[in-house]
Amino acid sequence: MNRNGWDTADAVKATNVTWHHGHVGRESRYGQLKQRGATLWFTGLSASGKSTIAFTLEHMLIDHGLLAYVLDGDNIRHGLNKNLGFSAEDRAENIRRIGEVARLFADAGVITMTSFISPYRIDRDKVRALHEEVDLPFIEIFANTPIEVCEQRDPKGLYRRARAGEVKFFTGIDDPYEAPVEPEIELRPDRMSPPECATAIIAELRRREILAAPPPPR
Amino acid sequence: MNRNGWDTADAVKATNVTWHHGHVGRESRYGQLKQRGATLWFTGLSASGKSTIAFTLEHMLIDHGLLAYVLDGDNIRHGLNKNLGFSAEDRAENIRRIGEVARLFADAGVITMTSFISPYRIDRDKVRALHEEVDLPFIEIFANTPIEVCEQRDPKGLYRRARAGEVKFFTGIDDPYEAPVEPEIELRPDRMSPPECATAIIAELRRREILAAPPPPR
Repeated sequence: MNRNGWDTADAVKATNVTWHHGHVGRESRYGQLKQRGATLWFTGLSASGKSTIAFTLEHMLIDHGLLAYVLDGDNIRHGLNKNLGFSAEDRAENIRRIGEVARLFADAGVITMTSFISPYRIDRDKVRALHEEVDLPFIEIFANTPIEVCEQRDPKGLYRRARAGEVKFFTGIDDPYEAPVEPEIELRPDRMSPPECATAIIAELRRREILAAPPPPR
Repeated sequence: MNRNGWDTADAVKATNVTWHHGHVGRESRYGQLKQRGATLWFTGLSASGKSTIAFTLEHMLIDHGLLAYVLDGDNIRHGLNKNLGFSAEDRAENIRRIGEVARLFADAGVITMTSFISPYRIDRDKVRALHEEVDLPFIEIFANTPIEVCEQRDPKGLYRRARAGEVKFFTGIDDPYEAPVEPEIELRPDRMSPPECATAIIAELRRREILAAPPPPR
């Protein structure tokens, strides 16, 4: 049947269709999508490679007919979180809201990636708890690029400006980065290309049955 | 090819895969999903039938292999918006955040339904503007059930409590409901069943090419 093969008599038969008073269950949703919803929470220093890996993975998944979406500064900072500043309270609320939105996306069945430095362990752990509360997978992915490499890359000149004192509270320079203690996935983006990192993540998602296993070789 | 037919040599070939520095374009995303992302914004009085219609439509779309998700009090009030109260400012912020999240879902390619009374025209129009700003369809759906019918239904006893003065600022009783001026879809849920309403919405989504047209009759 055509994937969108609506019965042309839908309108006529509509009165026989069941009324629904609640959300579609995750299992029927996941069965249709051939994937389970999950949040892949990337964390790491500025210029550690989080976004490039996330986008590379997003493209690989979409190309395979799967559903993935990246939440990042581009679509969050000027939208949902545009009314937040940089106070300690607002930074925590920033991560909380991103965590709540990721949870909604994961509940909808999307492989949801978040790409934010998210330097504080307590904020990440709260988002993990939000997911565990409703039995949704939370995969913390640590982009463990040494700060020396990040600082050498410095694509936006932010490290240079932080060293010069022009940017304050810059993670890794004058604000702490609290590395994950037991991340589900730890990457060394200084030693592997983004596609290699993305492929390693896919292998882990299969192992956790978030993605279906590949078909057996012919 | 299997929908999840990963090339088993992915890991080996990974170094030949392109690196990506940006989001997947909407067109490739929509091509895979066989639908365009859109926000269906239901508005109407308490007990007007918004949620039942939204859930009925969600089930119909998912059953046809499409991707739909309902944002409603259940998944928003105790999550993303749990730190909001009922002041005028917080009520506007409530709708703003829901609008921003719907926009993200629509951008991801999901047929996103929101089911909130959303009584003020200005708040709904701001959400409409957010969508127009980035060329995403915003379909305002007015569940135009007369208040007498809603009050007679009163499944949660809220109208009774509002009339007794136990609930204050209740929409339609002692707080205004501003009906949409030009909604994309106006329903009379007191005259049509939820499946009939859902079918009417599907017809409109096809007309707007958000959903593919049904296959021609054989």
